[in-house]
Amino acid sequence: VSIGTEGTSPALARALKSDIESRLPQETGRFAKVLKGLRALTKQHLPELPDRQRFWAKHLDRDLSNMLRRTPQQLKADVKDALTGTEKLLEQVVLVGAGPGDPDLLTTAARRALHSADVIVYDRLVSDTVLTLGRREAEYIYVGKTPGVPSIGQDAINDILVEKASQGLFVVRLKSGDPLIFGRADEELDALAAAHIPASIIPGITAAAASAAAIGASLTTRGTNRAVALLTGHDAKGFAEQDWRSLAGEGARAAVYMGVGAARFIQGRLMLHDANPQTPVTVVENASRPEQIIVETCLARLPDDIAAAGIKGPAILLIGYTATRVAQAQKAAS
Amino acid sequence: VSIGTEGTSPALARALKSDIESRLPQETGRFAKVLKGLRALTKQHLPELPDRQRFWAKHLDRDLSNMLRRTPQQLKADVKDALTGTEKLLEQVVLVGAGPGDPDLLTTAARRALHSADVIVYDRLVSDTVLTLGRREAEYIYVGKTPGVPSIGQDAINDILVEKASQGLFVVRLKSGDPLIFGRADEELDALAAAHIPASIIPGITAAAASAAAIGASLTTRGTNRAVALLTGHDAKGFAEQDWRSLAGEGARAAVYMGVGAARFIQGRLMLHDANPQTPVTVVENASRPEQIIVETCLARLPDDIAAAGIKGPAILLIGYTATRVAQAQKAAS
Repeated sequence: VSIGTEGTSPALARALKSDIESRLPQETGRFAKVLKGLRALTKQHLPELPDRQRFWAKHLDRDLSNMLRRTPQQLKADVKDALTGTEKLLEQVVLVGAGPGDPDLLTTAARRALHSADVIVYDRLVSDTVLTLGRREAEYIYVGKTPGVPSIGQDAINDILVEKASQGLFVVRLKSGDPLIFGRADEELDALAAAHIPASIIPGITAAAASAAAIGASLTTRGTNRAVALLTGHDAKGFAEQDWRSLAGEGARAAVYMGVGAARFIQGRLMLHDANPQTPVTVVENASRPEQIIVETCLARLPDDIAAAGIKGPAILLIGYTATRVAQAQKAAS
Repeated sequence: VSIGTEGTSPALARALKSDIESRLPQETGRFAKVLKGLRALTKQHLPELPDRQRFWAKHLDRDLSNMLRRTPQQLKADVKDALTGTEKLLEQVVLVGAGPGDPDLLTTAARRALHSADVIVYDRLVSDTVLTLGRREAEYIYVGKTPGVPSIGQDAINDILVEKASQGLFVVRLKSGDPLIFGRADEELDALAAAHIPASIIPGITAAAASAAAIGASLTTRGTNRAVALLTGHDAKGFAEQDWRSLAGEGARAAVYMGVGAARFIQGRLMLHDANPQTPVTVVENASRPEQIIVETCLARLPDDIAAAGIKGPAILLIGYTATRVAQAQKAAS
């Protein structure tokens, strides 16, 4: 690997080179040798150079990470299958977790999928900096739902995924956080299964984990809580009912997604079940993003303090958690 | 960026180049120009070339991702502060989530921290492929705890972190999954705070998310569950008691960490609270790793099926979840 910065900064070039080399799959060198060994076989099936170039481009661009993990024997069998037209279908739709917003909190697998995608179908809360990791030539389809505003329905989103994948396009369905936590992934996976379209999932950093990291508090503490509940403030019918008796118990801890609008409802239900009004609650809006806001409050003051702080964006209510370590965490991150 | 594969495979070189360029921070070009503009200032404070090289190496290697995000004005002020000896402390210990094992499920932030670390303090369940992302020159300290075997105590781990950081070394505390979910992070953060050592946290993909992705099931399903509980099977006193009445309820769903040894206990407690014996349970051992195993069972057969499958490694019990989509997911991933 060599890096040029046009003479502006050799130190930067060195730092980037070492950064990149650390991120290259370790098997790259061995892999290059195996590919070389497959030249004769490829040439036999695809005598024209442009055909061979297209063949390799298709497989290497789309499937590099899987190919790097195969043994030389497996790889040889794969390539033979592909050349003789009996190759297995590549996955056509991948549900990808975009994480909380900071592009540094994307996984390598997510970056690779984004870079290979022909079509990127994305939600309202996916950050712009994550979106720019897709290729310029990819088709970007916005399917965000805005609360309180008529938005695209789930059926229409399912239809887009099925339609694009049926055209042989590689579709990335990009969801903020983790696609399997309050992301309605089941409905999309069912629609794809019904259409016999292979799908897989790349998990992401969920907002509760990013929020806990932002305030320097562990979601679980030995001797304090043996469980943490991930809840939604809203469901299909409005404010979501929960097992309030359990959540109101001494020492109970929970992370509430989509809880800002439901804050007064949640407060009321917990108080009704004799929760301590002084239970600490920390609200993290836009965790991991430059516009992140942290509000420390308690159950008794929760809705008022949310309103006073002007929180309207995506936020997690961390019930039972304080932000005592936040000053330290902020200092360290600055 | 240019890539050489010594003539073995130009197609591979192209695929790698585009993969790498997609992962370079977008601001790199602008950043190089800003650095160039700071040359005169740096030269004024550090007239000797080797001093300037050390200065840039230290800041660029350790802090590249933060520096790339600063505006030119901020960056100029930072560099001035650093040159005049009033620089803020760099973070000294970072708790890093190593994710479930597949190195492709590491975040970019975690890779960067690993690559910069002077000392890497790691747990038993951190995979070897993740560990190899650290530098060869780094010091690796194993602090794994093996169940049922006398192992290093938490106090000794805390002491190592404080001692190494106090020597001015950049310490990465590498924990499998997410450091804030059943990772005893609080105890380490408290020890660091007591020693006035700045610490921060890079979240990771937690095992429950990787397990759900492996079986193609959403942890939450609109209309089915409005909450998912993350539980531990063990705590300091042995098998962990939980709010069993709530967990035994119709439609309750939970992911149990460290639940293999506690499977019969959990089964007994849930049945005592009238849980349906046919409640589906899917066990995922070594989620995301090549040796991943998925066992579909139900509450009535849980401990027996775990024993029959020979599950002994790290596993998540997904209570209330089926693996109906797993065949599809496996096909897509193969």
